[in-house]
Amino acid sequence: MKTILLKNRPEGKPSLSDFEFVTEDTDLKINTGEILLETTYVSVDPYLRGRMSAAKSYVPSFELNKPIQSGVIAKVIESKNENFQVGDFVSGMLDWKTKQVSTGEGLLKVDGSKAPLSAYLGVLGMTGLTAYLGLTQIGKPVAGETLVVSGAAGAVGSVVGQIGKILGLRVIGIAGTDEKIDMLKSKFGFDAGINYNTSTDIAADIAKVAPNGVDIYYDNVGGPISDAVLFNINKFARLIICGAISVYNNKEHPKSISVQPFLVKNSALMQGFIVSNYASKFPEAMKHLSGWLAEEKLTYTETVVEGFDNIPKAFIDLFEGKNKGKMIVKI
Amino acid sequence: MKTILLKNRPEGKPSLSDFEFVTEDTDLKINTGEILLETTYVSVDPYLRGRMSAAKSYVPSFELNKPIQSGVIAKVIESKNENFQVGDFVSGMLDWKTKQVSTGEGLLKVDGSKAPLSAYLGVLGMTGLTAYLGLTQIGKPVAGETLVVSGAAGAVGSVVGQIGKILGLRVIGIAGTDEKIDMLKSKFGFDAGINYNTSTDIAADIAKVAPNGVDIYYDNVGGPISDAVLFNINKFARLIICGAISVYNNKEHPKSISVQPFLVKNSALMQGFIVSNYASKFPEAMKHLSGWLAEEKLTYTETVVEGFDNIPKAFIDLFEGKNKGKMIVKI
Repeated sequence: MKTILLKNRPEGKPSLSDFEFVTEDTDLKINTGEILLETTYVSVDPYLRGRMSAAKSYVPSFELNKPIQSGVIAKVIESKNENFQVGDFVSGMLDWKTKQVSTGEGLLKVDGSKAPLSAYLGVLGMTGLTAYLGLTQIGKPVAGETLVVSGAAGAVGSVVGQIGKILGLRVIGIAGTDEKIDMLKSKFGFDAGINYNTSTDIAADIAKVAPNGVDIYYDNVGGPISDAVLFNINKFARLIICGAISVYNNKEHPKSISVQPFLVKNSALMQGFIVSNYASKFPEAMKHLSGWLAEEKLTYTETVVEGFDNIPKAFIDLFEGKNKGKMIVKI
Repeated sequence: MKTILLKNRPEGKPSLSDFEFVTEDTDLKINTGEILLETTYVSVDPYLRGRMSAAKSYVPSFELNKPIQSGVIAKVIESKNENFQVGDFVSGMLDWKTKQVSTGEGLLKVDGSKAPLSAYLGVLGMTGLTAYLGLTQIGKPVAGETLVVSGAAGAVGSVVGQIGKILGLRVIGIAGTDEKIDMLKSKFGFDAGINYNTSTDIAADIAKVAPNGVDIYYDNVGGPISDAVLFNINKFARLIICGAISVYNNKEHPKSISVQPFLVKNSALMQGFIVSNYASKFPEAMKHLSGWLAEEKLTYTETVVEGFDNIPKAFIDLFEGKNKGKMIVKI
C-alpha cells in the first residue's frame, strides 16, 4: 500500500521533491459501516496547487506530511456497509493512496456501463459541472453572443466551448500550441482559436475573430491573456473567473492591467466561480451534461498517465500545459 | 453670453489650456416650444475626464471646439413651452454656457423650497442616485456587514457611507487627509477612517478596523487603495466599481495587483456601475433619498466655487482632492 504525502509547500512551480512516497505493508481492516477501496483513477487539477500553500483559501490547505487528496474513482474490494457492494465503483474526494478505508460518506456510486469510469472525473464530474454552471450561472449566455475561453484546450475549457456552441454562441478559444488550436476547431467545434505563444498581439487577434466584441469571457488563466481580453469586452460583458493558473505559482502577488476602468466603462461584471457554491444546481447540470454526452453533442479529451508513482509528475506537468483535456492517472 | 469649449484633449492631468472661453454678444431668441435658460449652478465631476478623451466609453466623447456639458441647474428666463414658466428652475445635462436655449427635453423641474437648489446636483441628483443604487443594486447590503468606501469624502462616497449606516452596516472610509477623516466620522457617522496618505500599510490598517473582513467595497478610486482592499475581502464579497479616479489621468493602462486570484478564492463579484443603467429604479431611490434628507438622516457637504470663469479650475482641482463632497460652481 502506497501513499503520497505533501512534504514541502511548493515555492513557485511544484517539484517532485515536494512529495514523499510512503510504502506500508500493513493489511487494512474495516469496521462495521466501512468499505475498503482500491484506487482506479486519480484526477490531478490546477486548484490543488492552492491547497498546497498555507494561504487562506476557499478550501483548507493540505497539511504537511499528510496525504494529498483529489477527485478519485475507486473500486469497492471489501464492504461492511450495506450501501456498497464489492465490485461497485465510487467517485469522491479521496487520498492519494493505492488502498484506503472509507465510511462511504461523500462518495457517489458511478456506473461504468453508462459512460467510461474516467468520465466521472471529467465531463460528468466536477469538470463538467464547473464548465456548465460557470457558463450558465455567471455567464448568462444569450444565443448569438460571443464567448472567449482561456485555457480552452484544458479539461474545463474544452467543455465550456462545446456548451457555448450548443447554446448558440460564437466561441473563440485561447490555447498555447497550434496542435491544440486545431483540436479546438476540429474536435470541439470552436469557431476560432488563438495561439497565445505565437500571437504578437493577443488583443488585436481577438478583435479580428470577435468583430462584434466579447460578451462572455470564461477565464481559467488570468495574467496577460486576460488583460488582452479586457480590450475587447462589450457593454454588460460577464467575466467568469474560474481559475488563474498563470499566476498560481507566483510568490509575489502578480500585477496585471487595472481592470476597474474596463469594468466601469462597460458596466461589466467579473465574478469568482467555485462550483461547490452551486451544489443545488448539480442535478440540473448533470441532466444536461449526460444528455448531451449520450447525444454525442459533447465529447472530451483525456490525457491518461499510467501508474500511481506518476501522480506528482502528472500534476507538475499541468503547469507546463502538457495535458490535453482532463489529466488523469490510471492506477 | 459666455461658453466654455474643449480646446485640447487633456494628456494626463487636465490643465487650463485645454479649455477655451468664447464670449458672444448676440441676443438668444427662442422659437415655439423652447425655453431660455440662465445657468445657476454647474456640477463638475471626475467622469467628465473620460468624456474629454477620444477613447470609446459608455458616454460619447466631447467634440473638440464644442461646449462641454455636465449637470446644471438653470433658471427659466423666457418660455414658449407650456411646461415651463418663467422663474422655474430645472436640472439636466446642459452646456457650460451662461445662457442657452432648450426644448426642455430631458430637463426636470426642481423645487428650491423643498431642498436647496444645489442639492439637486448632489444628494438628490445623480450623486445620490449613484450612491444609493450602486450600494443597493450591486452591493446588496445585509445589516451587520462591513462596507469600505474609497473616495469617501467625495460627493458620492460621503452619501454611500451614510446610507451604509442607515442600512445597519459597519462603515469604513478611505480618504486623503486627517481633516477629511475627522469629517467622515463626526459629520457623516462613519465608524472608522483611513488616511491613505499617512498610512504605511493600507491593507493592514483596513484589517485593524474591519476585524470581520470586508463584505462590500464601494470603489471610486481604483489603483493601490483598491489593491489593499482585496487583501481583506470576505467570501462572497461584492465590489462596486463606480469610478477609478486614481487612474483616469494615466496615458498608459496602469497596472494593479491581479484581481483574479482574490475573486476566485472568495467567490467575489466585481461589477462596473453606471447609474444610467438603473433608470427604472430612480423613483424608488429618490423616495428614499428625499425621505432620509427630510428626516435629517442624510446630510451632505458641498464645495461651492463662485463664478462661471472658475469652472475649468474647479474641475482640475477635483484631481487633487481639493473638494469636500460635491464640487459645484455657482454662477
